Formats: sequence, C-alpha cells, structure tokens
Amino acid sequence: MTDPIRELADLLTRLPGVGRRTGTRLAFHLLGAPQDYARKLGEVIATIHERVRPCTSCGNYAESDPCSICDDATRDHKLICVVAGVQDLWAIENTGEYRGRYHVLHGLLSPLDGVGPDDLNLERLRERVIGDGIAEVIVATRPSVEGEATSLLIRQTLEGLDVSVSRIASGIPHGGELEYADRMTLGRALSDRREM
Amino acid sequence: MTDPIRELADLLTRLPGVGRRTGTRLAFHLLGAPQDYARKLGEVIATIHERVRPCTSCGNYAESDPCSICDDATRDHKLICVVAGVQDLWAIENTGEYRGRYHVLHGLLSPLDGVGPDDLNLERLRERVIGDGIAEVIVATRPSVEGEATSLLIRQTLEGLDVSVSRIASGIPHGGELEYADRMTLGRALSDRREM
Repeated sequence: MTDPIRELADLLTRLPGVGRRTGTRLAFHLLGAPQDYARKLGEVIATIHERVRPCTSCGNYAESDPCSICDDATRDHKLICVVAGVQDLWAIENTGEYRGRYHVLHGLLSPLDGVGPDDLNLERLRERVIGDGIAEVIVATRPSVEGEATSLLIRQTLEGLDVSVSRIASGIPHGGELEYADRMTLGRALSDRREM
Repeated sequence: MTDPIRELADLLTRLPGVGRRTGTRLAFHLLGAPQDYARKLGEVIATIHERVRPCTSCGNYAESDPCSICDDATRDHKLICVVAGVQDLWAIENTGEYRGRYHVLHGLLSPLDGVGPDDLNLERLRERVIGDGIAEVIVATRPSVEGEATSLLIRQTLEGLDVSVSRIASGIPHGGELEYADRMTLGRALSDRREM
C-alpha cells in the first residue's frame, strides 16, 4: 500500500467505530472525493481545537470564554445542571424546559476505563457552588452503573455545602411499553412513583 | 450547537456510512481527542490529493508517475489486469500470483449512479493495448450486474485489436459450502466447470 494512504487509513482507524477495513475504505473515499472537500474537511479537523475550547467556568465547548450560556444574564444563576458531555447539554437545551446553567464533567466515573474522580472536573463544580451561591444542583448523568456512581460522587463532593442536590427522574420513557421495559427501568418507575 | 462543531459534523456526515448521529459523535470525539492527533489527521486528509495522484498510465494511486508497478522492468509488459479500484489492485498484488501490470477504471458501469462508459478510463486502456503491444487483458471486475456489464464494455472497446481478453473465474469460494452458495454463484460454478 502507498505510504500516505496507509498513514491516512491508520489515523482514521483510531476513530471510534472505525476498524481497519472501514479506515481503508474511508481513505480511498477521500482520495476519490473532490480535492476541495478533502482539503476543507482536513482543515476543519486540524483547527477544531483552536476554534472551540471548553468554557473555563462550565466546561461547555464554545468559541468564547465564558460560553454564551454562562454569559447569559437572563438565565437562573442559582441553578446548575451537571451533565457528562456537551451533547447532553444540547439535548437538555433542546427541551426548552431548563433555564439555568450547566456543568460539564467530560466523562463518567469508570474505574475500568481509567476514569477516576480527579478526571471529572468536580473541584471546579464545588468552587462554583460556593463562589456563586448556587441553590440547587441537578445531576443529569444517565441512569447506568457509571452514571449512578458519578451522581453519588457529586453528592459526596457537595456534602456539607448549603445546596440542594437533585437527580433527574428515571422510569418508563414517554410512549414506552411497560411489557418491553427492562427490569431495572420498571423497578425504578415503581420505587420512584409520585403522588398524584 | 456551536458553529465550528456543526460545520465539522456536517463535513463528516458526507463520508460514506456516516449519518447525522455518527457525524456528531465523531466531531465530539475529535474535540475530546488529543489536539496533536486531530491536527495530524486533518493535515493528512487536507494534503492527501497532493501527496498521492493517479498514475497517468494505469490509474493506480501513487507518489510517483508512472507508479512503481508500471515502472517495474521485471514485470510482464504484455499483460494487463483491469480492476475497478486501487483496493482491488492491492488485493491481487497480495495473492503474489500476478506479475503483469494493471489498469484501474476507478468505477464500474452503473447508469443508475450516473456512471457511463466515458467515466471509466477506457480510452487510455485501448491506447495502452495498441501502443504497448499487449498480448492479454484480464478483466478482474467483480461478478455482479455492474461488473459483468463493465467486462462486456471492455471486450467491445478492445474489439478488432490483436489482444486476447479473459475474465477471472467465478464460482464457489475456497472453503465455501455448496448448500449456502446463492443460485447465481452455484449456477456459474456449474456452467464454468473445467475438465480435470
């Protein structure tokens, strides 16, 4: 194989979900694609870290620092929603239901993957809660082993501070069927029932 | 979504097999990956068309022109193997069974995808057969509707020239089970039987 094509295929193979075969196929696709497209894609990939950086306050990816959400004076300054990643932040923004700020962990506690408490941007969360007089922290990590472990770690991190810590609800999703729900989900839906 | 991330996700979504969701996931992966990796990958993608070009003789992707295969004096100069793409050329090289040269079509005849006879580098094949006094052309396009149509087109293109045109064998693959072979393959294996 020609060296530059092999180099390109090797680099592409390091992307998630891209094996050797797909990496090679993508390399050939790029060679067969218009040169303008390859050049543009390459430039955008090469410069993305310079154009977008984590907000030093909340961790959201943004072109400005602080990000536009932290900088928005119309938002509720006493409320922080903690998410694992920026994609989750966007998902919550899309609901239109939330008007507070965020805190992005950039990961979930996962000892098997080498992600420990020090990798999760938690010290900054504690600083923000104290410094900004936050009234409530909503933990919006996913209901999984890692997400639950992370939510417990957050509660510990904020222990003793004058802040209420809540967790997003877990249960049968909207439109979901009870008979097809897994045991954990159905169990959670029962134990977390609300008076009506 | 932040504009540069959206731009990156949109460009990634134009890759084959990458939908909106995967494009977004890859964009975030690149943001979370080490900056050195993103910069290297981007540079290699942006410059691949400058570093690797189709050989003007055979169409193989190469850093030099003519490519190292066309330039190899120890190869059989009277034999050309016609393939749809450079990946097929490499697959044949890997067998170690072939010592002639190649001709890369960069596609197969496919009217539905807008690929017609003029898109297939066939005029150059005819020139080579005449100019280099080629004795045999082996058509190694895949046994599919497009591959068969292309092989017929090649035979027509070379009609009247003093060259023998052959087609690679199609049949049960090595180690394959007759009972699981599709009807076309089994039928072909029977009709193309060889005396032993």
